[in-house]
Amino acid sequence: MTSVSAHQDLSALYAEVQQFYAMQMQRLDNRELEAYANTFTEDGEFRHTPGQEPARTRAGIVADLYEFHKKFDDDPMRRRHWFNMVNLEPRDDGSIRSTVYALIVKIRPGAKPEIAPSCVVHDVLVRDNGTLLTRSRWVHYD
Amino acid sequence: MTSVSAHQDLSALYAEVQQFYAMQMQRLDNRELEAYANTFTEDGEFRHTPGQEPARTRAGIVADLYEFHKKFDDDPMRRRHWFNMVNLEPRDDGSIRSTVYALIVKIRPGAKPEIAPSCVVHDVLVRDNGTLLTRSRWVHYD
Amino acid sequence: MTSVSAHQDLSALYAEVQQFYAMQMQRLDNRELEAYANTFTEDGEFRHTPGQEPARTRAGIVADLYEFHKKFDDDPMRRRHWFNMVNLEPRDDGSIRSTVYALIVKIRPGAKPEIAPSCVVHDVLVRDNGTLLTRSRWVHYD
Repeated sequence: MTSVSAHQDLSALYAEVQQFYAMQMQRLDNRELEAYANTFTEDGEFRHTPGQEPARTRAGIVADLYEFHKKFDDDPMRRRHWFNMVNLEPRDDGSIRSTVYALIVKIRPGAKPEIAPSCVVHDVLVRDNGTLLTRSRWVHYD
Repeated sequence: MTSVSAHQDLSALYAEVQQFYAMQMQRLDNRELEAYANTFTEDGEFRHTPGQEPARTRAGIVADLYEFHKKFDDDPMRRRHWFNMVNLEPRDDGSIRSTVYALIVKIRPGAKPEIAPSCVVHDVLVRDNGTLLTRSRWVHYD
Repeated sequence: MTSVSAHQDLSALYAEVQQFYAMQMQRLDNRELEAYANTFTEDGEFRHTPGQEPARTRAGIVADLYEFHKKFDDDPMRRRHWFNMVNLEPRDDGSIRSTVYALIVKIRPGAKPEIAPSCVVHDVLVRDNGTLLTRSRWVHYD
C-alpha cells in the first residue's frame, strides 16, 4: 500500500506536469519559439518529425522551429496543441517518463477546425533547480 | 527554487480548478443555467460572444443564457464543452488568471460529432469563503 | 468553508484519478485487455454498449473485450480514448462517483482522425489496499 505522502507527492507532480504542459504548448502555439525552447534542458532533444534527426540543444531547437514554421508563413492558420491522458512513470534516477496523447487543432479563418494529426508524445522530464524541463521529446504519429 | 509547500499549494489549486471547470461546464451542458451562473461571483462578468457586451451579475448571466439558448429550442443538439491546457497564473491580489483552450463538441442524433468552434477562455478566478468562483470570463474565438 | 487539508485530499485524489484514467485507457488502446480488466475490481461491472448487459467480473470483462475487438481484426485502425472534464463526487461509503466526458479518436492509415462517438462515462471508483479501481462503468452515448 502506497503511503499518503507518496500519493501526495505524485499528485503534486501530476498537477505540476499538467501546468508545465499548458504553459509550454501555449508558448509554441503563440510562436514564442525561444520561450518554448527554454522549457527544454540546455542539452534537450526534440524529435517532432518521424524519420528526421532530432533537434538538439536549445539553440538547435529554436533554429529547427524557425525552419519548421516557414511553411506556415503564407498560411493564416492557428495551431492549438491539445495534450491529454498524461501517464507519468517516475524513474529511479529522478527523471519522469511521460506518455501523452496529443491532437493538433488547426484553425483557418472561415473554416471549421481541422483536428489532425493524432500523436503520442514520449517525454523524459527532469527537475532542474526545482523547475521542470523536458530533456527529450519524441513525437510518434498515429 | 520553489519550496515544496508552494509546489503543493499550486498543485492543490490546479486540481481544484480542473474539478471546478468540470462541474461548472457540465452544468452548462446540462442547461442548468442558474446553477452555472452561481459559479460566478455576484458581480461576475461573462463575455461569450465577441463584439457583444458581457453579461453582468448572476441574474444578468442567467437572463443572457436563456436568451442565447433560444436558438437551440428546435435543435436536438447536445453540447459538450471541453476545457484543456489550463494555464494558471496566481496574482498578487489573490485572484488567479486562467488561460484555457476550449473546444465545443456538438452532437445531433444520427450524425457524427461536430467539433467547433475552437476558443481560448480568459478567466479571472477568485476564492470566496473557500469556494472558487469565476469573476470574469472572456471567450476569444480562434 | 472547506479546510485546507480537505482541499489537499481532494486535490491529491483528483490527480490520482487522472493518472489512473491515463494508465487505464492507454492499456485499452494498446489492446492489453487483461491489464485493462485488472483496473476493475474482481466483481467489476462494465457496460460499454447501450442496450447490452454489462460484462461482469474481470474474467467476464476480458472475454467480452476479446469478442468486442473481433470486429477490428481486419481494420488497421488505432483507437485513442480521450477522457476529460473529470467531475468527482466522493460518497459517504468511501467510493467516488466520477462523471467524465469521453471522445474516441479513430485513426486509419492515410486518413484524418475520425473523432466519434462522444460519450459520458459514469464510473464508481473504489480504493482497494491503496489502489484505485473501477467498480462499475456505464458508458452513455450522446
